[in-house]
Amino acid sequence: MYSREREELFINLNPLQTAGRTRASVRKAVTRYVDGYSVCDACAGILHDITKPPIKSLVDDLAEFLNVDVARTTAGAREAKFMVMHSECSPGDILVLDSNAHYSTYVAATRAGLEVVEAPAGPPPFFHITAAAYAETLEQVKTRTGKPAALALLTHVDGDYGNLTDAAAVAQACHEAGTPLLLNTAYTTGRMPVDVRAIGADYVACSCHKSWGACGPIGVVGAIGERAEHLFRLDARYPKKNIELLGCTARGSNIMSLMEALPLVKERVKHWDEELENARWFAARMEAIGKGGIKLLGDNPTNHDLMRFATPLLHEIGQGQRKKGYYLHKELTDRGITGLKPGQTQWFKMSTYGLTRSQVEYLAQAFEEIASM
Amino acid sequence: MYSREREELFINLNPLQTAGRTRASVRKAVTRYVDGYSVCDACAGILHDITKPPIKSLVDDLAEFLNVDVARTTAGAREAKFMVMHSECSPGDILVLDSNAHYSTYVAATRAGLEVVEAPAGPPPFFHITAAAYAETLEQVKTRTGKPAALALLTHVDGDYGNLTDAAAVAQACHEAGTPLLLNTAYTTGRMPVDVRAIGADYVACSCHKSWGACGPIGVVGAIGERAEHLFRLDARYPKKNIELLGCTARGSNIMSLMEALPLVKERVKHWDEELENARWFAARMEAIGKGGIKLLGDNPTNHDLMRFATPLLHEIGQGQRKKGYYLHKELTDRGITGLKPGQTQWFKMSTYGLTRSQVEYLAQAFEEIASM
Repeated sequence: MYSREREELFINLNPLQTAGRTRASVRKAVTRYVDGYSVCDACAGILHDITKPPIKSLVDDLAEFLNVDVARTTAGAREAKFMVMHSECSPGDILVLDSNAHYSTYVAATRAGLEVVEAPAGPPPFFHITAAAYAETLEQVKTRTGKPAALALLTHVDGDYGNLTDAAAVAQACHEAGTPLLLNTAYTTGRMPVDVRAIGADYVACSCHKSWGACGPIGVVGAIGERAEHLFRLDARYPKKNIELLGCTARGSNIMSLMEALPLVKERVKHWDEELENARWFAARMEAIGKGGIKLLGDNPTNHDLMRFATPLLHEIGQGQRKKGYYLHKELTDRGITGLKPGQTQWFKMSTYGLTRSQVEYLAQAFEEIASM
Repeated sequence: MYSREREELFINLNPLQTAGRTRASVRKAVTRYVDGYSVCDACAGILHDITKPPIKSLVDDLAEFLNVDVARTTAGAREAKFMVMHSECSPGDILVLDSNAHYSTYVAATRAGLEVVEAPAGPPPFFHITAAAYAETLEQVKTRTGKPAALALLTHVDGDYGNLTDAAAVAQACHEAGTPLLLNTAYTTGRMPVDVRAIGADYVACSCHKSWGACGPIGVVGAIGERAEHLFRLDARYPKKNIELLGCTARGSNIMSLMEALPLVKERVKHWDEELENARWFAARMEAIGKGGIKLLGDNPTNHDLMRFATPLLHEIGQGQRKKGYYLHKELTDRGITGLKPGQTQWFKMSTYGLTRSQVEYLAQAFEEIASM
């Protein structure tokens, strides 16, 4: 089970955790603002306008960092996605998304009453999402319904394969089809540089407990131009209150932890090339260890720290072990490595985010030992 | 500005804070589970079914404590209210609510596309909400539209006057009109005993950072019978995932802090009579000090720790002070009392929740001194 102590002693490979680890200053902010309405003392009616603590500066910084016109905090990326769908579409409208999209994207679409049409991923082992697939799907929707799809969503990097899709090309296809684009960056912003305006997306959703090292649940939603005005429209009766944000969202510890995390995030995205180099080095080593019995799925070479390996070799080894499939988890635990699902040996997902090169080398060595059992 | 140190040295009267203060064990849980997906390690697809840590037991306990069939955590009371409105109603439907309702109730209704019709409060200084007002309003809606209002919402205790409304009588009026009732208990559950089934409400919304001493934002939504089945319906494509919860809601520190807070809450609601006695004692003393220049608004005697006083006497005194209206805040601060808005003297809201009798006596003495300046 999770504990901070264990987290700090072990090398954790769980892709949900690696970029969500909090730094000491973030944890300090969490403790200081732990009582529910702690940031509301100086509120004159708008959470995101509070200057003490500097929440207004935070949301301005977020907009600048993402390069959008307006950014606001949310309870998470899924809430950001629902917000955009609910604001941009009406029940019965069509949402075009990539078939690698996270389940929460589908559930948000169900909640918003949308019909989902998938831009299909390419064949295994790459499962690539392309702008051509979006263009074709958007065209099919137009032919069938006589109008553009109400909204498109692209999972910038997906959680199954860690594939990085050419978001700018997808944005262009969407604009040519007359459909706005929401970019789900749960696995990108906070880890790697993302310029939403340069990409040409209209909306962005971020997960700050997944990829920004903040205490969650907390996310960010951003929008550009008139889309921002509409998304953040105000209530007629309470003209200070955002309708889609229900007035205000993340308060207290969560938003204060993001305030502390943001400077660290701004710095760390500059070192994305090192993260990528680590991941690629590790993946190449794993494939070499396996001699065909360990295979990286998705982009190869990978473009992200989240990697999915097909591991028939490790599965086969398990057949001869007393603990069967559970041997892998045990062997890793014995070596101070955690985060893989117990019993899973045919494939697994993992992330090298935040590990030093020597930790990654140690990791490769561990798998090497296990592969030769 | 807020700080835990200040909070612990001062007597804080801010009604947003008094019942949201976290205990040491709660703060410890927050620190332990501070990294975003800390509770997700043992998740098999349903947050509320996790047994290690015992989140399943938590939500079962919540349902039992509130006396509803199913309870789930949310990002807060406003999200709980929106969830019920969005699930129960269609855009254009009518929501009947009390005119003392919180702004977030109105904004949630706007977001859900509902027409709001108010059951009006009675005249000043009491501003009472009655079952008769609900019955009449529901009848008017039926006459005008030919069908029952889609949903009614009652603010159990409101945030302006701290008035406790007879929820059972309102529930009866709603059921006679064929309209389900959502009880907003942001200021009741967690402070005082509330039995949702005995009251006869169909849904309940709770604010755990406001009234349960948990690290927010976190709330609870509960429902009874078929209403619960519909509210917590599952996605066809992802049959483990709740649609209205978008799969899962409060994770990490927030839900773990509620787990730690719940046993404390169960205990403290048993002492509600002491809280009420303190509040009534204080209000009577304030009215005596003011000799007509300080007046309790709303229920009198009060039925809640949140009290609103009209204070023309304190305003008048300010006219003769160098700091004008700001003198009151300064005088209180000098006496170690915080939580009133600087500059506000014509009226204020405050709460005695969690104060000992001797602290309340000290408080009354402070106002006595200030009133004789």
